[in-house]
Amino acid sequence: MGASLADARVAAAGRDACDPLAAIRDAFLLDDRTIYLDGNSLGPLPRRAAAKVGATIEQEWGRDLIASWNTAEWFRKPWSVGDRIGRLVGAAPGQVVVCDSTSINLFKAACAALRMRPDREVIVSEAGNFPTDLYILESAGRWSGGRRLRLAGRDGALDELIAADGADRPALVCLTQVDFRSGLRHDMAAVNQRIRAAGALGIWDLSHSAGAFPVALDADGSDFAVGCTYKYLNGGPGAPAFVYAARRWHEAIDQPLAGWIGHADPFAFELGYRPAEGIGRFLCGTPGIVGIAALEAALDVWDRVDLAVVRTKSEALTEAFIAAVGRFADRHGLELATPSAVAARGSQVSWRHPRGYAVMKALIADGVVGDFRAPDVMRFGFTPLTLRHVDVIDAAARLERILDEERWRPFEGGRGSAVT
Amino acid sequence: MGASLADARVAAAGRDACDPLAAIRDAFLLDDRTIYLDGNSLGPLPRRAAAKVGATIEQEWGRDLIASWNTAEWFRKPWSVGDRIGRLVGAAPGQVVVCDSTSINLFKAACAALRMRPDREVIVSEAGNFPTDLYILESAGRWSGGRRLRLAGRDGALDELIAADGADRPALVCLTQVDFRSGLRHDMAAVNQRIRAAGALGIWDLSHSAGAFPVALDADGSDFAVGCTYKYLNGGPGAPAFVYAARRWHEAIDQPLAGWIGHADPFAFELGYRPAEGIGRFLCGTPGIVGIAALEAALDVWDRVDLAVVRTKSEALTEAFIAAVGRFADRHGLELATPSAVAARGSQVSWRHPRGYAVMKALIADGVVGDFRAPDVMRFGFTPLTLRHVDVIDAAARLERILDEERWRPFEGGRGSAVT
Repeated sequence: MGASLADARVAAAGRDACDPLAAIRDAFLLDDRTIYLDGNSLGPLPRRAAAKVGATIEQEWGRDLIASWNTAEWFRKPWSVGDRIGRLVGAAPGQVVVCDSTSINLFKAACAALRMRPDREVIVSEAGNFPTDLYILESAGRWSGGRRLRLAGRDGALDELIAADGADRPALVCLTQVDFRSGLRHDMAAVNQRIRAAGALGIWDLSHSAGAFPVALDADGSDFAVGCTYKYLNGGPGAPAFVYAARRWHEAIDQPLAGWIGHADPFAFELGYRPAEGIGRFLCGTPGIVGIAALEAALDVWDRVDLAVVRTKSEALTEAFIAAVGRFADRHGLELATPSAVAARGSQVSWRHPRGYAVMKALIADGVVGDFRAPDVMRFGFTPLTLRHVDVIDAAARLERILDEERWRPFEGGRGSAVT
Repeated sequence: MGASLADARVAAAGRDACDPLAAIRDAFLLDDRTIYLDGNSLGPLPRRAAAKVGATIEQEWGRDLIASWNTAEWFRKPWSVGDRIGRLVGAAPGQVVVCDSTSINLFKAACAALRMRPDREVIVSEAGNFPTDLYILESAGRWSGGRRLRLAGRDGALDELIAADGADRPALVCLTQVDFRSGLRHDMAAVNQRIRAAGALGIWDLSHSAGAFPVALDADGSDFAVGCTYKYLNGGPGAPAFVYAARRWHEAIDQPLAGWIGHADPFAFELGYRPAEGIGRFLCGTPGIVGIAALEAALDVWDRVDLAVVRTKSEALTEAFIAAVGRFADRHGLELATPSAVAARGSQVSWRHPRGYAVMKALIADGVVGDFRAPDVMRFGFTPLTLRHVDVIDAAARLERILDEERWRPFEGGRGSAVT
């Protein structure tokens, strides 16, 4: 570690000493030999998760069996767990349910929104959006009477596409708030205003937002949102996702996955579908209780957390990493792929490097776990609940050594394949 | 217990003594004070489930983190677990994936099938089908260019609806093999033949078949099938569902939930959707690993089980229950709602009774757990892996006493609300 990084580490240690989130870190299983900068892909394990899931399995399923649908309130889980996520994304109660996957929830929300704008044929998104969102949007458009997908970065600039007139007037604008490659963060309130001015509806994918910083869905005037719970929220691999709709749209929601849990009275066993009042009409099949239990263990931790404090620490972490790596970036051809303005980024930092894949493999072998996105993006996620300020400096120091000593050479060839 | 029931109990005990499934029973957590006849709603807990899920959580998620997508083969789970279910429903490998809920899988399969029959506008099902299937079929029809749902029992007899000509020619026939109220079982091969003769496609809902008796999807010439894993398969509350497509249809499948896990190369991050080869194109979002782990614990038990033996025991259980209750059925106004021919039923027995709801409540209070379906159906599920032959006789004896002594009176009023 060079002298200047050593100085930075001393400052970081000072920050750790007065970190209001330091105690929260103990709620997670962490390996002291690893610096895990991939919590934006799969969040670390809350220590209480196995016990919580175990109790759900042994007591609620094993002993109480079918009665648990009522006695353990399994039936209410999509709403009760939804409201706990709602608090973290600025949604008043009754507007979020937990269910299915992010992709499926996006399909439901997109179809519902398109049905509210039958006279417009365009869906706007970004070419850099996470691909599954693009696949789902294209499909929702195809199954909703043939709507077209226009992509910022391919078909024009985002603001132009939103404000387009005539046949290009958008029905729906769907954006991931934080870009999965670059970490660029949209200004939700400002974009919502443009969407509203265009007479379109908006869907936010909050997969890289929820648990990373305060989100204000209601206050910012959002229409719909979806997101996963296995990244910053620590809900576990493939944990159930969530979907939000502002209350003003609930009555108009007509979505294709019209299963019995979204029915107004599932146990009346009526022949025809009557959608539930409220956000429940986004539900479809029987909720997956075991997966939800793991997510609840994570939310037990989140209930003690103030997102404003999370964001303050997140900014310090990303700023420190950019500064620390910045010291040797030019020398090694590293190019910052994340906005340098702190307000314009989420809680990740990405660096482009022509040998990015091999460098990331070498880093992982050295105990610094980030990930890689083709063609050349090394991605580092900063999860304020589980990271220390010194971890950031240590990660930068190891990256410097790997580049200085060309320790990435044995890893050349192949390509990255970590999940996002 | 009357003399004749006492005789039946002796015979039942004799059967238990040489039951080839007796050892399997020990693999489940069972309460000796309870006779659980609701395994067709939520199957009992495999004893190893909590440990299996715990290891997945503590080791794979907690310690190995993101690497587990590859090292623990999380990515392969939809296929590998699907193949294990495939064995239980007569599907050769590579034709079943585990994912999402039964309702969502039905939506995918129905939309795919309708797209293969663009010139026909009718979907055939039964008025007595489980309501969520009807809701989903109606919705799939609506989002597939306005197809119509015709229901046997409302719009005509099933065979007539399948063979209808002209504008009523069916594109798709979707049936639950075993009726959730009556337990009536369709002859899969015979119905498939009629569907094929009509030039339509078929989808079987196997929710009350899988794990209840041998199913021969391939041999019987089925097109598509879906099913849940939390009933006879013991996968846990809201466990992930499965979907089957015969190999001959794989290349033609075009379904709306076109998410990244169903993409030919998810980590290429391509702008456009290219469906995976094979059954994988029915996948959508990131698989829910924690829920799948519980299901795997159940399948560890099922791997040791011969479905033919299961069916033989199931027939003995349902026959014995019908005979035992038959002794006092007339006297108490109980009407058998299940076919009396053993080949025509699944693994449940239903009795109609005007006080059915109250009688079932009294039974549950007395430790015999069945469930109730409006307006008057008492439903008893017989899960051969976890029930003894004597349980059947004891349940009948308790039912007789409740009716004889009118112990149901305190439970009058209200209506049933157990999950199916």
